[in-house]
Amino acid sequence: MQKILVLNGPNLNLLGIREPGIYGAKSLADIEADLRAHVGDAVELDFRQSNHEGDLVTWIQEAGLAGTGVALNAGAYTHTSLAIRDAISGAKAVVVELHLSNVHAREAFRHHSLIAPVCKGVIAGFGPLSYRLAVDALLAL
Amino acid sequence: MQKILVLNGPNLNLLGIREPGIYGAKSLADIEADLRAHVGDAVELDFRQSNHEGDLVTWIQEAGLAGTGVALNAGAYTHTSLAIRDAISGAKAVVVELHLSNVHAREAFRHHSLIAPVCKGVIAGFGPLSYRLAVDALLAL
Amino acid sequence: MQKILVLNGPNLNLLGIREPGIYGAKSLADIEADLRAHVGDAVELDFRQSNHEGDLVTWIQEAGLAGTGVALNAGAYTHTSLAIRDAISGAKAVVVELHLSNVHAREAFRHHSLIAPVCKGVIAGFGPLSYRLAVDALLAL
Amino acid sequence: MQKILVLNGPNLNLLGIREPGIYGAKSLADIEADLRAHVGDAVELDFRQSNHEGDLVTWIQEAGLAGTGVALNAGAYTHTSLAIRDAISGAKAVVVELHLSNVHAREAFRHHSLIAPVCKGVIAGFGPLSYRLAVDALLAL
Amino acid sequence: MQKILVLNGPNLNLLGIREPGIYGAKSLADIEADLRAHVGDAVELDFRQSNHEGDLVTWIQEAGLAGTGVALNAGAYTHTSLAIRDAISGAKAVVVELHLSNVHAREAFRHHSLIAPVCKGVIAGFGPLSYRLAVDALLAL
Amino acid sequence: MQKILVLNGPNLNLLGIREPGIYGAKSLADIEADLRAHVGDAVELDFRQSNHEGDLVTWIQEAGLAGTGVALNAGAYTHTSLAIRDAISGAKAVVVELHLSNVHAREAFRHHSLIAPVCKGVIAGFGPLSYRLAVDALLAL
Amino acid sequence: MQKILVLNGPNLNLLGIREPGIYGAKSLADIEADLRAHVGDAVELDFRQSNHEGDLVTWIQEAGLAGTGVALNAGAYTHTSLAIRDAISGAKAVVVELHLSNVHAREAFRHHSLIAPVCKGVIAGFGPLSYRLAVDALLAL
Amino acid sequence: MQKILVLNGPNLNLLGIREPGIYGAKSLADIEADLRAHVGDAVELDFRQSNHEGDLVTWIQEAGLAGTGVALNAGAYTHTSLAIRDAISGAKAVVVELHLSNVHAREAFRHHSLIAPVCKGVIAGFGPLSYRLAVDALLAL
Amino acid sequence: MQKILVLNGPNLNLLGIREPGIYGAKSLADIEADLRAHVGDAVELDFRQSNHEGDLVTWIQEAGLAGTGVALNAGAYTHTSLAIRDAISGAKAVVVELHLSNVHAREAFRHHSLIAPVCKGVIAGFGPLSYRLAVDALLAL
Amino acid sequence: MQKILVLNGPNLNLLGIREPGIYGAKSLADIEADLRAHVGDAVELDFRQSNHEGDLVTWIQEAGLAGTGVALNAGAYTHTSLAIRDAISGAKAVVVELHLSNVHAREAFRHHSLIAPVCKGVIAGFGPLSYRLAVDALLAL
Amino acid sequence: MQKILVLNGPNLNLLGIREPGIYGAKSLADIEADLRAHVGDAVELDFRQSNHEGDLVTWIQEAGLAGTGVALNAGAYTHTSLAIRDAISGAKAVVVELHLSNVHAREAFRHHSLIAPVCKGVIAGFGPLSYRLAVDALLAL
Amino acid sequence: MQKILVLNGPNLNLLGIREPGIYGAKSLADIEADLRAHVGDAVELDFRQSNHEGDLVTWIQEAGLAGTGVALNAGAYTHTSLAIRDAISGAKAVVVELHLSNVHAREAFRHHSLIAPVCKGVIAGFGPLSYRLAVDALLAL
Repeated sequence: MQKILVLNGPNLNLLGIREPGIYGAKSLADIEADLRAHVGDAVELDFRQSNHEGDLVTWIQEAGLAGTGVALNAGAYTHTSLAIRDAISGAKAVVVELHLSNVHAREAFRHHSLIAPVCKGVIAGFGPLSYRLAVDALLAL
Repeated sequence: MQKILVLNGPNLNLLGIREPGIYGAKSLADIEADLRAHVGDAVELDFRQSNHEGDLVTWIQEAGLAGTGVALNAGAYTHTSLAIRDAISGAKAVVVELHLSNVHAREAFRHHSLIAPVCKGVIAGFGPLSYRLAVDALLAL
Repeated sequence: MQKILVLNGPNLNLLGIREPGIYGAKSLADIEADLRAHVGDAVELDFRQSNHEGDLVTWIQEAGLAGTGVALNAGAYTHTSLAIRDAISGAKAVVVELHLSNVHAREAFRHHSLIAPVCKGVIAGFGPLSYRLAVDALLAL
Repeated sequence: MQKILVLNGPNLNLLGIREPGIYGAKSLADIEADLRAHVGDAVELDFRQSNHEGDLVTWIQEAGLAGTGVALNAGAYTHTSLAIRDAISGAKAVVVELHLSNVHAREAFRHHSLIAPVCKGVIAGFGPLSYRLAVDALLAL
Repeated sequence: MQKILVLNGPNLNLLGIREPGIYGAKSLADIEADLRAHVGDAVELDFRQSNHEGDLVTWIQEAGLAGTGVALNAGAYTHTSLAIRDAISGAKAVVVELHLSNVHAREAFRHHSLIAPVCKGVIAGFGPLSYRLAVDALLAL
Repeated sequence: MQKILVLNGPNLNLLGIREPGIYGAKSLADIEADLRAHVGDAVELDFRQSNHEGDLVTWIQEAGLAGTGVALNAGAYTHTSLAIRDAISGAKAVVVELHLSNVHAREAFRHHSLIAPVCKGVIAGFGPLSYRLAVDALLAL
Repeated sequence: MQKILVLNGPNLNLLGIREPGIYGAKSLADIEADLRAHVGDAVELDFRQSNHEGDLVTWIQEAGLAGTGVALNAGAYTHTSLAIRDAISGAKAVVVELHLSNVHAREAFRHHSLIAPVCKGVIAGFGPLSYRLAVDALLAL
Repeated sequence: MQKILVLNGPNLNLLGIREPGIYGAKSLADIEADLRAHVGDAVELDFRQSNHEGDLVTWIQEAGLAGTGVALNAGAYTHTSLAIRDAISGAKAVVVELHLSNVHAREAFRHHSLIAPVCKGVIAGFGPLSYRLAVDALLAL
Repeated sequence: MQKILVLNGPNLNLLGIREPGIYGAKSLADIEADLRAHVGDAVELDFRQSNHEGDLVTWIQEAGLAGTGVALNAGAYTHTSLAIRDAISGAKAVVVELHLSNVHAREAFRHHSLIAPVCKGVIAGFGPLSYRLAVDALLAL
Repeated sequence: MQKILVLNGPNLNLLGIREPGIYGAKSLADIEADLRAHVGDAVELDFRQSNHEGDLVTWIQEAGLAGTGVALNAGAYTHTSLAIRDAISGAKAVVVELHLSNVHAREAFRHHSLIAPVCKGVIAGFGPLSYRLAVDALLAL
Repeated sequence: MQKILVLNGPNLNLLGIREPGIYGAKSLADIEADLRAHVGDAVELDFRQSNHEGDLVTWIQEAGLAGTGVALNAGAYTHTSLAIRDAISGAKAVVVELHLSNVHAREAFRHHSLIAPVCKGVIAGFGPLSYRLAVDALLAL
Repeated sequence: MQKILVLNGPNLNLLGIREPGIYGAKSLADIEADLRAHVGDAVELDFRQSNHEGDLVTWIQEAGLAGTGVALNAGAYTHTSLAIRDAISGAKAVVVELHLSNVHAREAFRHHSLIAPVCKGVIAGFGPLSYRLAVDALLAL
């Protein structure tokens, strides 16, 4: 059975509680449930969240070494973490970068991703649908 | 019946003929055919290509005024055309920006999109699959 | 009888239809009509619009060679077109750059005009009145 | 009777005396006289000049509080004075920024106006005619 | 009896009259009265305002030579005046820079203070309370 | 009883031990004790320190959700952590940014705070007194 | 018989009519005639001009696919057109970039060519002689 | 009898009182006295100081119109005042820019002079001797 | 017996497993073993790795306070962590920065080290030999 | 008999020995021989090479004073030597800048020539053929 | 007898021969003769010129070690030579930087001196008089 | 017998004579003697110094062609010489860049090395020990 790791970075545990105008009313648990319903039983989803950059580094290393595809919403670390970038390229992880909001329509510091150049592709701006598209892309690759 | 406009900018008529290492072996006609097969009869696809910036401006205006969703691969105009940007925002067109290649992994001048801030979302890096994901996103919105 | 060419660039055909909050409720045809009423029979107005950069280049060349003054609202090409700049200086056209909105109060990329250094002068921010002031200036020169 | 305040910044008292090639042969008094002739008795013109940034700040505050429209040639302070900018926005003054010369065709440091973003509009490059167009614009608003 | 000089720069005489949404409803006189009530009779407050950069330079020189602490709201001159900076360091004045609004949450040109590097400290964002905190800091130093 | 959270970022556990010339001779425990004496029994102080960015993110989230005001000395993360910024804005935490030293008088990379734009206000440069002013500000808000 | 395509971009149709001080007194037709005389009957010259970026894109694609060498004077599009750049690299066209004037001795925005990195070589500054040198180079390659 | 105007900008009235390590122990009056002794009776020295930018603008205009040479120590306005620059070029004043300290060996913002490009020459770094060299230069011109 | 702390930052646990072309075939354990063989029994080596920035901060603080020399391969944190920089300078740790690869021959973002200015020295580019040179340097200091 | 000076800067003595993939297999002597064969007896070629910037300065001065045209391959000094630039403009030397490789397709620091603005023209990218085209251009001028 | 070294950098041997409009009609020998007449027998002048950066480095080292003051016109090396800067500071040479022309009124790349920060002072813009002022300054120090 | 070339650039002949606080009390001869003692008879050391960029270019070319390893302290040319960079890459020389001081802790212009990207590795900050480490590295490679 195919396995996919869905990783969520800092502050994504706040989803649905605060700022629904930007991020939507769904909590991270809602998104996880929707995603499980979308992929069904044929895919093993491993869904995690951490506020620690080091945790994301470690999880991506594990996925890369195991050959597991990663859907990664790195939150603010998208724009500041070279360590995550090195984890992806160092462990040859297949990663799809995803964002709930259209980062290009927000503050300038969110326009540049340190991670994108070593990812397979990028999906941004579709709300919770971004997760489904990212997983669909990983399954189709 | 729902209608979707798929617009292709400069040099995309070369697809499949040259540089298959970067853009894949499929021609633009192949991509169109795949896409028609993917959406089936329930969706009316209008698939166009032009090397002229002004044509893309006009087509986006028409789509915006008609309320037709647009999947837009603007090619090099992504990085130089404020006129296309103004067409999208001026005509309130719902546009998904898409790219075959992961533009963030290529030359620096391809990292910045003038169009993304006024699009609904962005999908990049999945080859012909990017077209399918973009259309799926438009249908789900 | 004195002749004046009024040129309108990309997306100005949308005027009055969309975004009246920014650009006002008048269509381009309304502006043309008002302008004809303002100058009366003593002036021959030639009023055009195109979404194609190359059309604007050609029209400015013709005006410069014929000695016709030009009121130019180049839209987004104001900020990206060196070809229009070269047309003005190459054909020694007398051009007044005009804008409906105060471009300096909008996005940063609208603050810099590639065309202004080779124009006679600039008028921006007065809505449809900008057209009348530009034509008044051309007539007074 | 409608009142308009015409404010002139540093070095504009030199007009007509020096550099007629750039600024024209008319003195500031000539421009004032022309302007009074142009508007006639129906408008009360208040015409002032100072080399002090603080004077311009104070005069703009007064105009804003009194609801008097301002035609402002801020000279070099256009490019250095955030205090004048704050006076305009703080007192909600309706200001038309004007310049005798086409500032965009001169040194790079004259291309950027700190004041323009809070003005109603900008008129530049028409010599003494710039004053008449600015007053016409204020009267038409 | 300890003396403290409270200096206010350009446009702060508008406080309470305009833009209460940003700067609060209190006038500068209100703030002065509150501050006098807060410090009581034990402190001699000298409270001044000017729109002229040169006045602020002179007042800071006097305070520095007399050993009087200064609470300085330099307004827009915070971002443009090296002369005020030199007055502070040249006269070894003990200055606390203060702002009513959180300047870091406003336009980019308000993020950089030319004066802060030669001040004792900075307090910004607390409305009229900023004045009280600044005076408290001077008294505690 | 009102509660205030005082958060200290990386290397603040070194206070008093090293570099007293810059940061003063007081340890973090001394500052905590002084602060408790200052606020008395009427305020519940929760005083913490961590070298981990993720811990600060989590603590700020908790404070924001609980409605507890935060006095935050984020140390070096002030200049590098978008995750802390997102925690503040995402959880709508009321935060006063504080610094012992005047960061504007130090290296250039300490002049820009990523966090300040989403804080209520900033207090910097008063040594341990900065903590007292920050808490006073929170209590007065 | 060897074929060479000579492409001329925007405003080059003005050659000889205006600004002979910069571009020389020869018209584009004169240059074409000189060039035909220079290469004689052994070479088939295809000499074209357009003010439209899209035309240049299409013509370069055709030349690349046909294996025809291109001497390209792209005029102002040299500095703004990524679409032409992509046409050259996408169609693997062998292109010699040429300019009549020494672009490095003119305005700063003419110093940088977007096209040069994908051309075989660059020749600039020799007036109509630049065309002959470019064709000589193509024939010698 | 030849006349020379020696103008001193903001904070130069502090000379000798503060920061003798940087600016020397001589007061501005000492420098004036030395300078009068140096030039003797053959030269009429007019020696002034002001903290107001506008005063310097006015004085330079007067000197330019009268044909009097100017030795100008503009202090901090050297780096911020385009109005002084315009006064020099507008009134065609012959100005020697002078500085007591070597501005190039101090903070970066003191390395760039807005005034130097329109001055005859620059002398910096020789303490009070800079005044004598500047006057010698004016007399020799 | 002299003690030396060898610290390894994020992703260095991947050494030898992935990308041997860049980082060599040796694992981190191999490097540790080689290093122990090189220094022999006379030196106590403490060899650690973490993906967490906060761990590196804490370990460097401990080394600084204990007077233990540090050989630091901070990996990607070299370029993003001001917290590690403050730990080194705050705890007065004697640190030799080392890199396996020649960071100056790689991506631009690896050319600038935030840590180097507070280190004793830097050694880069010699593969596992970099560790031996760094330890030799610490022993010789 | 017409004379032409061909100057070669640093490292061009390595031609043909190293990096034939970039610079071709011909040595500098081969290029000199080919060039002599190309121009025949009608032209006196003076062909030199030096690794010293000062030598190139002196040689260009001599050529300028003697009225001898110069074909200059300045190598790396193209990008760093203002002294060579001043030699060309100071001695009014007629210089054609040439490069073997297409410098615009290489590292960014090779894209900008300090010398080009004072040269007659530039030829780059044609290998040894660049020398022949440069000499042809000098002869045709 | 006091000794002064006058050093002249690249292209100054061209003085008087070329470009008298910028540099004056005097040759370097004329300037030397004038200078000898100005200082008389009481000063030993050592007057040299070289086009080689290395020569200037060596001569400045010798002057610094011997305690001889240096009047240095480094020509174009002013803007490119860190080696000359290091020679001045390394040998603690007392150097007055001088220029014939006002470098601040010329091309932008001449506005920044790498050498000025380690010189005693700077004199620029007075033609041959600059040499006399520089020597006067050295004698007065 | 293995041979190593140790090259020293501009001003390194001053070592030990001046600025011992920065560079140490040892002269270049002392360093050479220490180094000979360190490597013993098994290695042939060729130790040179020059103030001329061209000499360093030539010496590196010779070493590269002969296959001799180079320890290079290029002094100020590290930051300005593309010619030395081209010599290293053109002659495929194996070079270890070394510095006595920690260049990253000094002025900003010393932070960037033009040479490092084409060297094997870099060693900086260890005083004369840097030479020994560089030679050790060359011998171990």
